[in-house]
Amino acid sequence: MSGFADATAVRRIDEGRYAVDIDPGYCIGEAPNGGYLMALLGRAAVDASPHAHPVSTATNFMRVAKAGAPAEIVVEPRKTGRTAASSLVSLVQDGKRIVDALITTGTLEEGVDADWVGEPPAVPLPPLDDCSGGRPPGVGKNGFADQVDMRFDRSTMGWLDGRPSGRPEVRAWFRLPDGHEPDAYVLALAVDALPPVSLNLGANGWAPTVELTWHMRAVPAPGWLAVHGFGRLLTGGWFDEEVEVWDSAGRLVAQSRQLARVPKAALKK
Amino acid sequence: MSGFADATAVRRIDEGRYAVDIDPGYCIGEAPNGGYLMALLGRAAVDASPHAHPVSTATNFMRVAKAGAPAEIVVEPRKTGRTAASSLVSLVQDGKRIVDALITTGTLEEGVDADWVGEPPAVPLPPLDDCSGGRPPGVGKNGFADQVDMRFDRSTMGWLDGRPSGRPEVRAWFRLPDGHEPDAYVLALAVDALPPVSLNLGANGWAPTVELTWHMRAVPAPGWLAVHGFGRLLTGGWFDEEVEVWDSAGRLVAQSRQLARVPKAALKK
Repeated sequence: MSGFADATAVRRIDEGRYAVDIDPGYCIGEAPNGGYLMALLGRAAVDASPHAHPVSTATNFMRVAKAGAPAEIVVEPRKTGRTAASSLVSLVQDGKRIVDALITTGTLEEGVDADWVGEPPAVPLPPLDDCSGGRPPGVGKNGFADQVDMRFDRSTMGWLDGRPSGRPEVRAWFRLPDGHEPDAYVLALAVDALPPVSLNLGANGWAPTVELTWHMRAVPAPGWLAVHGFGRLLTGGWFDEEVEVWDSAGRLVAQSRQLARVPKAALKK
Repeated sequence: MSGFADATAVRRIDEGRYAVDIDPGYCIGEAPNGGYLMALLGRAAVDASPHAHPVSTATNFMRVAKAGAPAEIVVEPRKTGRTAASSLVSLVQDGKRIVDALITTGTLEEGVDADWVGEPPAVPLPPLDDCSGGRPPGVGKNGFADQVDMRFDRSTMGWLDGRPSGRPEVRAWFRLPDGHEPDAYVLALAVDALPPVSLNLGANGWAPTVELTWHMRAVPAPGWLAVHGFGRLLTGGWFDEEVEVWDSAGRLVAQSRQLARVPKAALKK
């Protein structure tokens, strides 16, 4: 295992063009994790920008990337301003656009107090020692589950034993086992790291993400991240999943929403 | 006033190219409303797609569009599948990309019952007769406020009288005065129609949207829409605004989040 920094490295080969190796270690089944791909896209976008952070990343997942194969990231700058810069960033493989993202970069100051912040999620995460670690069944060895250290709120993991909670919620503590402290790219990973919240509605099986937008709201402090996932609606084979990430200093550092598919056959009636 | 359907018409001039007139009637100040522009982009995306609805629209607002001037919408198809089709859709004016959107189209069935839906927003809208209509000060005549019929929950409009509530929330009933019933494009308008929730934090002035992603979750029923806006965090000059739109049949029909800027000087300490 090469560590998160190496696995998300991007090599500039020309103006707005970056070579990347898609690390097979971040796959769930055959598919590289979406958060891992967003980390790659974010690194390229920031490298091509005068700003330090990917504050907004809106991503369309169109095809499954091939892991262990070469790929390229193309950054097309749209507008570069003093406060923010926007670009279209695409992962290209075998001449096809696999993932498109509209990324806005900006520079967030560290340790800033919020002018206003809402209440933390209503249901807090239990203390770390009361949570469950380990690899969910169905997630193979030498894959995504080996790259992250997640400790799940057991009350949101009943689906593992065939007892889904009936509420589309999953909560977990999150950190990287290689000691890489939270940064923008770890947040990209964290917002798409939870098992689909639809599992707790009895919708078993793969839930491919169609679109995921996430916002980086603050520079995260070192330590564990608290990752809160929930959904609002499952209908017609589509469901949403919102994630809030809070850091060890109690700051809201990232927000996301994704729209994903559940095969209708997966729903137990 | 030509009505919403005419104001959002798109004329196909070639494969993936549409001519549009940006109606000055949808301006707030000099700037055309972002929801109005998303309605235009959505119409073009659906016209170029085999599917009926814009289920996911992730939008970067980069420049201010000129109203009353010609513009073009360019639709670049990315992937067309049986369930969904994705495209990059841009509003182009004077040779510059003004707005980019990643739009996924799909076809939602009418009158479907949700497999699972969360609770309606904790604070309901008061009955229509207890809400306030009319044009907020600072919103000129012959502009956006004339195109929509909005009835505001007065408890979220204290900022009008210099008494912001201290909570970033705005709620309103919403319909079009020309009798055009809710559809996908009315929803695009509704998710960006509220005054910025930051006004209730004492952050006066224009709050330009940097990014807005919205999801159409169901085909709306005729009648009034209930539009609930709230925010989670204002920090470093950035704030988020979430909107849920519920229809007259009690269905959650649209969800959005935007990331916007507040000039730091606007914040009263």
